[in-house]
Amino acid sequence: MRVQTDGTGGLRHLISLDGLTREMLMAILDRAESYRRFPGQPAYEGRELAGVTLANLFFEPSTRTRASFDLASRRLGAHVINLDLQSSSRAKGETMLDTIYTLEAMNTDIFVIRDSEPGLPEFLMDHAAPHVSVISAGEAHVSHPTQGLLDVLTIRSHRRRFAGLKVAIVGDIRHSRVARSTARALKTLGTTDLRLVAPQPLLPEEDEFAGALRFTRVEDGITGADVIMMLRIQKERMAQAALLDDQAYFREYGLDARRVKLASPDVLVMHPGPMNRGVEIASDVADGPHSVIREQVNNGVAVRMAVLACIAATLTRHRKPL
Amino acid sequence: MRVQTDGTGGLRHLISLDGLTREMLMAILDRAESYRRFPGQPAYEGRELAGVTLANLFFEPSTRTRASFDLASRRLGAHVINLDLQSSSRAKGETMLDTIYTLEAMNTDIFVIRDSEPGLPEFLMDHAAPHVSVISAGEAHVSHPTQGLLDVLTIRSHRRRFAGLKVAIVGDIRHSRVARSTARALKTLGTTDLRLVAPQPLLPEEDEFAGALRFTRVEDGITGADVIMMLRIQKERMAQAALLDDQAYFREYGLDARRVKLASPDVLVMHPGPMNRGVEIASDVADGPHSVIREQVNNGVAVRMAVLACIAATLTRHRKPL
Amino acid sequence: MRVQTDGTGGLRHLISLDGLTREMLMAILDRAESYRRFPGQPAYEGRELAGVTLANLFFEPSTRTRASFDLASRRLGAHVINLDLQSSSRAKGETMLDTIYTLEAMNTDIFVIRDSEPGLPEFLMDHAAPHVSVISAGEAHVSHPTQGLLDVLTIRSHRRRFAGLKVAIVGDIRHSRVARSTARALKTLGTTDLRLVAPQPLLPEEDEFAGALRFTRVEDGITGADVIMMLRIQKERMAQAALLDDQAYFREYGLDARRVKLASPDVLVMHPGPMNRGVEIASDVADGPHSVIREQVNNGVAVRMAVLACIAATLTRHRKPL
Repeated sequence: MRVQTDGTGGLRHLISLDGLTREMLMAILDRAESYRRFPGQPAYEGRELAGVTLANLFFEPSTRTRASFDLASRRLGAHVINLDLQSSSRAKGETMLDTIYTLEAMNTDIFVIRDSEPGLPEFLMDHAAPHVSVISAGEAHVSHPTQGLLDVLTIRSHRRRFAGLKVAIVGDIRHSRVARSTARALKTLGTTDLRLVAPQPLLPEEDEFAGALRFTRVEDGITGADVIMMLRIQKERMAQAALLDDQAYFREYGLDARRVKLASPDVLVMHPGPMNRGVEIASDVADGPHSVIREQVNNGVAVRMAVLACIAATLTRHRKPL
Repeated sequence: MRVQTDGTGGLRHLISLDGLTREMLMAILDRAESYRRFPGQPAYEGRELAGVTLANLFFEPSTRTRASFDLASRRLGAHVINLDLQSSSRAKGETMLDTIYTLEAMNTDIFVIRDSEPGLPEFLMDHAAPHVSVISAGEAHVSHPTQGLLDVLTIRSHRRRFAGLKVAIVGDIRHSRVARSTARALKTLGTTDLRLVAPQPLLPEEDEFAGALRFTRVEDGITGADVIMMLRIQKERMAQAALLDDQAYFREYGLDARRVKLASPDVLVMHPGPMNRGVEIASDVADGPHSVIREQVNNGVAVRMAVLACIAATLTRHRKPL
Repeated sequence: MRVQTDGTGGLRHLISLDGLTREMLMAILDRAESYRRFPGQPAYEGRELAGVTLANLFFEPSTRTRASFDLASRRLGAHVINLDLQSSSRAKGETMLDTIYTLEAMNTDIFVIRDSEPGLPEFLMDHAAPHVSVISAGEAHVSHPTQGLLDVLTIRSHRRRFAGLKVAIVGDIRHSRVARSTARALKTLGTTDLRLVAPQPLLPEEDEFAGALRFTRVEDGITGADVIMMLRIQKERMAQAALLDDQAYFREYGLDARRVKLASPDVLVMHPGPMNRGVEIASDVADGPHSVIREQVNNGVAVRMAVLACIAATLTRHRKPL
């Protein structure tokens, strides 16, 4: 577990939610709420990142997460560089480090990294200059901390407390960074009743998600749930695991209106997107009264603004005088 | 014909020039003139789009139109997201809708859409939230409303009235969204003498361009014309239609200095760009004294600023209070 | 040699360092120093380019140089358009000219061009409107003026005078635009002792780099040097020239700690980047106490800001009144 705060407890990096206290999470969520504007309201615009340069380094394409970080940064006044990079070479670590040094030398303050392989965010955090921050925007199956934060912000907006909440995560949990980060955030905030629902090959290793119950039958896992989080099913992995085709998956695990009725009457239906409608979730459920899927997206920008503003405040304390 | 205005007559969407009144067109052109700055003058900069987020969704690559919308938006203070998207899948409509919902949830206010297939702008307009606008930046062969507006703005800058004007459009009219939108704008503004000039397979269907005269011999069509609008010839289509090669096309239909002499002595030569010099237009004509081709580009930015400013004013009235 | 200044001596274009006086170079370096902020300091932000539109036209991909120009422009308040363009067609000149005319008509003021073939910057400079500027961001093997400027700024920050300085350039000088521009700047500023070190096939033609000494043995070239500038070795060219593989090149020409000891005790080690660690330079030298490689990057942004600010001041004098 890496220390991501500076000596005074200020947030410096965010590559994982491990080790962040309940107080820090709640402070980020509070700040996110202050930035949140619902669709149809004018977006919040501020100067919290004035004079800050942020580089989005995406080794894995992502329209949604990149747009979210891009808008969050610019609405707070940052200069943003978007770089799409090839993640081919074995020597990526070292080459990447020279790219980071180069951008640092151009007075880049914050690096947002997304990568399909594990290790790069921590590697860069270990090598970054003292006045530079690293944020993960998704690291392999390991971590997606801002997604974890936006998920708990969405839940907090609808439920008074995290303790006593029954949360079911359904889908390819084994390969999901979202599931890991959200489970981590829920645990820190006091949720103890977590249920993992997936076909056996898509459940995580036994030593992960300590304390969670595991189910291979979706009806068993979601009965009485206060929150159901559906995960995207990636066809490539389904094929590799010689699993189910789309129709069969939907029949066995897809969240349709009939199954929603098994959950709590005011269950929240969540999905990190992008959705495969008709595969893991029925279209009418995705757009239905229990769905908070678009709220999640809205909260995503607010959470990223909050994280960036916290980090910028920390960086300011570490800046060299002119 | 879709209603593109709100209850008070304010412009809300712009996916077609159909149904826009003469008064509304003139108001947009007037506003565009107030934004227009000629090359060598500093560009107009304003705050009409302050707090507005605009997404450029281009399913069809376009350096020129995208740069024009991008600059128009940013010079009025908007935040701009540029997305280049794949237009492959049959399910584009539905997937696209989720992309729109996602960007809406990030407080995107205006969507600028360009697509080589018909239907997406209207589909999105039908599904957009009440505080969201859709602008077409080119839809298949159907419509290119801002191009139509910049064309009539260019003509209005040089001619007192639209009534009585003789306008010849020459080239691949059958596949041209520019021809359709410009013809629509001209008709609304009072031009009745429109001539369509093309090889037979490139003329539009008989029930289109009502009232226009049709010519297959260029000399017949342009004689006495006050305006000649040349269209880009796309080689792929020429080949498919087993038509003419470049040299033969230029010989039969290309606008050279000799042919310009058949038109009115102060004829305006126009082209929406990009040009194939030596195919549909001779280089010396493109750069010659009758050419207003670069003025069209200049007017393009001004017209897009005007449309965006009108729409932003309408959106402001529909925004939810904080 | 093209005149790149206007009638009053103001900088108008920058496609080469030829013909720029010592006074002009020193004025640019002075201004660059005023813009320079070291990593960890907040970047300089100003309004010197307010109302200016700049287009980055990159026919050759370049993450570093483009990010440097992009940040330099935006930190001074410009609107920036980034265009990645295909450099395939034989007719590039003419098509390119129409692209330039189009962007000019959109009130673009400054064009930054990078191209792997020679000729385009001068061609565009010859055809640009009087209120438009052209800056080269790297032209084939010919010229890379802002790199030359950042190199001499880096040297000036550490050495009192250019006269009497011993400078060794090591590597593929034959194909290097950096070597040509930096040698030009050094000569203008008074450095007479320039040493070129490379395998015979990578040394330049005899009539280039007048007055420079040539060496094929690296130890001979760098002994006593005050500055060693290492150049990137491109494997494609090595293979074409049936030269050395990476290990053999490093053994014969690579700058390692042992070789650094042959130079002046306070030698500056420079590299324009991106580096091939273990090929032309040892990793510990690149990161060692003599290395000013990251300072070069930092100075790169400052120099580009200075060039842009000088050019914008000139353009302002040539602007048409409203």
